[in-house]
Amino acid sequence: MPTIALDAGGGDFAPRETVAGAVAAAADGIDVLLVGDRPVLEGELEHHGVELPIIHAPSVVGMGDFPIRAIREVPDASVVICGKLVSTGDAVGFVSAGSTGASLAVAAVGMGRLPGVSRPAIASLMPIPWNPTVLCDAGANLAVRPSQLVEFAVMGSVVAETTAGIPNPRVGLLNNGSEDSKGREMEREGLALLREAPVNFVGNVEGSDFATGVVDVIVTDGFTGNVFLKTVEASVVMVAKAFFSMLAKKDPEAEEKVRPQFSAQGRQLMDDRHAGAHLVGARGIAVIAHGHAKSAAVAKALQMAHEGSESRLSEQIEERFHCL
Amino acid sequence: MPTIALDAGGGDFAPRETVAGAVAAAADGIDVLLVGDRPVLEGELEHHGVELPIIHAPSVVGMGDFPIRAIREVPDASVVICGKLVSTGDAVGFVSAGSTGASLAVAAVGMGRLPGVSRPAIASLMPIPWNPTVLCDAGANLAVRPSQLVEFAVMGSVVAETTAGIPNPRVGLLNNGSEDSKGREMEREGLALLREAPVNFVGNVEGSDFATGVVDVIVTDGFTGNVFLKTVEASVVMVAKAFFSMLAKKDPEAEEKVRPQFSAQGRQLMDDRHAGAHLVGARGIAVIAHGHAKSAAVAKALQMAHEGSESRLSEQIEERFHCL
Repeated sequence: MPTIALDAGGGDFAPRETVAGAVAAAADGIDVLLVGDRPVLEGELEHHGVELPIIHAPSVVGMGDFPIRAIREVPDASVVICGKLVSTGDAVGFVSAGSTGASLAVAAVGMGRLPGVSRPAIASLMPIPWNPTVLCDAGANLAVRPSQLVEFAVMGSVVAETTAGIPNPRVGLLNNGSEDSKGREMEREGLALLREAPVNFVGNVEGSDFATGVVDVIVTDGFTGNVFLKTVEASVVMVAKAFFSMLAKKDPEAEEKVRPQFSAQGRQLMDDRHAGAHLVGARGIAVIAHGHAKSAAVAKALQMAHEGSESRLSEQIEERFHCL
Repeated sequence: MPTIALDAGGGDFAPRETVAGAVAAAADGIDVLLVGDRPVLEGELEHHGVELPIIHAPSVVGMGDFPIRAIREVPDASVVICGKLVSTGDAVGFVSAGSTGASLAVAAVGMGRLPGVSRPAIASLMPIPWNPTVLCDAGANLAVRPSQLVEFAVMGSVVAETTAGIPNPRVGLLNNGSEDSKGREMEREGLALLREAPVNFVGNVEGSDFATGVVDVIVTDGFTGNVFLKTVEASVVMVAKAFFSMLAKKDPEAEEKVRPQFSAQGRQLMDDRHAGAHLVGARGIAVIAHGHAKSAAVAKALQMAHEGSESRLSEQIEERFHCL
């Protein structure tokens, strides 16, 4: 059974919620290895009356630390140890709700990049009910070269196939219009490269197209991707609120009737969202959970990592890069 | 009474909807000058039984034409004549639902930039009910220098004051996180410049912050701004649909009760959206309406241009740039 290492010290609600998430995932049959301060983790496990293997890692990389320096200067940090466990083969992947920069550094430097990958990227599955869409890069690489868009397209396609079960996923380039002449030099050059790439490329898509069902994978630089993803999430919350306040005024009984279902869906979406995203392009599985992840989201992230390993996500990406 | 020139030949539904919009605006007391193919416009006006002044401009700049070249090579295009009318003082501003690139070229070259403005930008008022927010640049300048962010902040602030009546508007820089270290070199340098700028700068904001009410003006490059704006709009439509389909299943009567109000609000938002945005930084008023603008949106765009002139939008921007 492949083991997933959990950075139990990372995240706003660590170690309480990380350990609780690990306990829930273990109950679902996932082989979890806790990485963090042993006495603290043992204390947490005692509350649950559960035993889980622990690897001692007394330090944590802070959100304000400069990631690459931190992972070099704090070798006993929980996230650094997680990366080591993957590189030695003691774990097939890791999950962290701590600093995204630190996880990125651990993936790129600690675990190592796959041949042909210039930098790992974040492939985020946007939970759009009628059309789950993978966004790559969702925030790892703020400035990218056109050729990296091709890497994102290949990696995003594999994630769409393996995590969302979408065969031959359609890939679109996020741009400010659909015409070939649109975009910055980056998008115009990227468009030409994507047309030649071994992916099912459908052309430019706009900010509105994630909702229209015309693509399964959206590629963009990590800056635009980050703004895009946060905007979608905030818009959903904003409109949902506006609806309920209108409905409560017009028809309070109806509002009471639908609110529970919508709230449940909202919580579900939030857990999905906080469970995080695959960090792709490294040797092994890395899932970055949201800093606010609570136990349900941590458990889900562990499940994601487990499934990523089962579906040979990293190996499939490696194979696909042989054709590039 | 200040005259607004309407590019009656521009837009997907020209001249029918542009002329109908002009007729509606004229009925509301706005002094409109139609610019386009005289016989065609006279035919349209006849349907309405209304007389409006016409300036003959037999050509139109197409959506596929390269804007700067088009406005040089097609001097009798309706949007080019609009710009000329503003530069000669025969009109205080113009409205066009045609090619945005052509309007930009007309504003920058035909009307001319205000001193200190490197390029005109699009200042789009996002109709968020509890917090109208100005986005600048919403799509004119895809790649910008950090110093241009300061220009966008100043121009966006004046638009927030004059069109949304927000005193001392709070300005935020769209970024991938709130910390100072976030963003590309552009944002990090821009942040430092904005801190020194004569605007009410509150720091970095994220894609989610347009909904939280923490800012009145969001500045960003035109590429990110375009993606951001289209994403917000699409998200609203997406959630609205999901909500109604859920409500229809759970409580069809309630759905029937609230749908009319929401549909009316939706139409209103759509008209507001299609009415377009101020193109700021040129000598005079320029409002770019959406290509899909129907008569109500065209009338609203003419109203926007009229109000922009009444509130001395261009002059106020010019004055503010004296302090830079």
